[in-house]
Amino acid sequence: MRHILSVLVENHPGVLRKVAGLFSRRGYNIDSLVVSETENEEISRMTIAVQGDDDILEQVIKQLSKLVDVIKIEDISNRPIVNKQLLLIKVKADIHTRIDIITLMDVFRARIAHIGRDSLIVEATGEQSKIDAIIETLKPFGIIELAKTGTVAMLREEEQ
Amino acid sequence: MRHILSVLVENHPGVLRKVAGLFSRRGYNIDSLVVSETENEEISRMTIAVQGDDDILEQVIKQLSKLVDVIKIEDISNRPIVNKQLLLIKVKADIHTRIDIITLMDVFRARIAHIGRDSLIVEATGEQSKIDAIIETLKPFGIIELAKTGTVAMLREEEQ
Repeated sequence: MRHILSVLVENHPGVLRKVAGLFSRRGYNIDSLVVSETENEEISRMTIAVQGDDDILEQVIKQLSKLVDVIKIEDISNRPIVNKQLLLIKVKADIHTRIDIITLMDVFRARIAHIGRDSLIVEATGEQSKIDAIIETLKPFGIIELAKTGTVAMLREEEQ
Repeated sequence: MRHILSVLVENHPGVLRKVAGLFSRRGYNIDSLVVSETENEEISRMTIAVQGDDDILEQVIKQLSKLVDVIKIEDISNRPIVNKQLLLIKVKADIHTRIDIITLMDVFRARIAHIGRDSLIVEATGEQSKIDAIIETLKPFGIIELAKTGTVAMLREEEQ
């Protein structure tokens, strides 16, 4: 099963290495990881998407919560969340195909971030399934480059 | 100076730990880090935003490029790039203020991801300066929670 962990950590050098180490020592691969600032500049949030054995994950979570720098850790996979990724994708586009691409992307409420001579850069946000659908739609045109942020997530209601 | 590093790595457990370790051993703090899939599922891309001494960074880049799992590393800070972050921000909103917030967010082309009883979740993408402006605009209403992805970046033209 896919899990999304929301981890609040002290913003120190070395925290990322420690957290990543706990996963890798168990051969547990991280699908995506986002680390960045929060409303408090001394605290960072890591949003970690992982897939794999639930029992091992439970152990990892226990050990994470013992790290001095970890303030709070929560598996928010089964809670009501807003859950988004950011996709940048550069796709081949000539004067014949670019209007097609722009029109298709409009259906997904995706935006054109750059129009080049032979390419377009599309910018889109959404849940995994929408991002996957956009990528599938663009494949036939020829994908040159793709960059995704991985998931950031937030509980819908106030209680955290 | 702020640098943006684009690093292509083999998608193995442990790569993240090694990369993060090279920075932390020099007390070099990472502002934001995004790791996720690329167009090739065996390869991940890390986009790392750092701020600090240029000479030390140069050493870190040299050592990163020696890691077996690192395929390519590039400092793209001074090149023509599309450079975006994704922001989710939960802000206090009652029946008196929520229309104001929605109207203000429309100016930034930000979207409303969720309307709660006492709050809104705003979703926005853009460069650092735009994201900062959105946060400043929302502060007076009362920020409940904030999650950002950090920067993903892509060269505008085809040559990579």
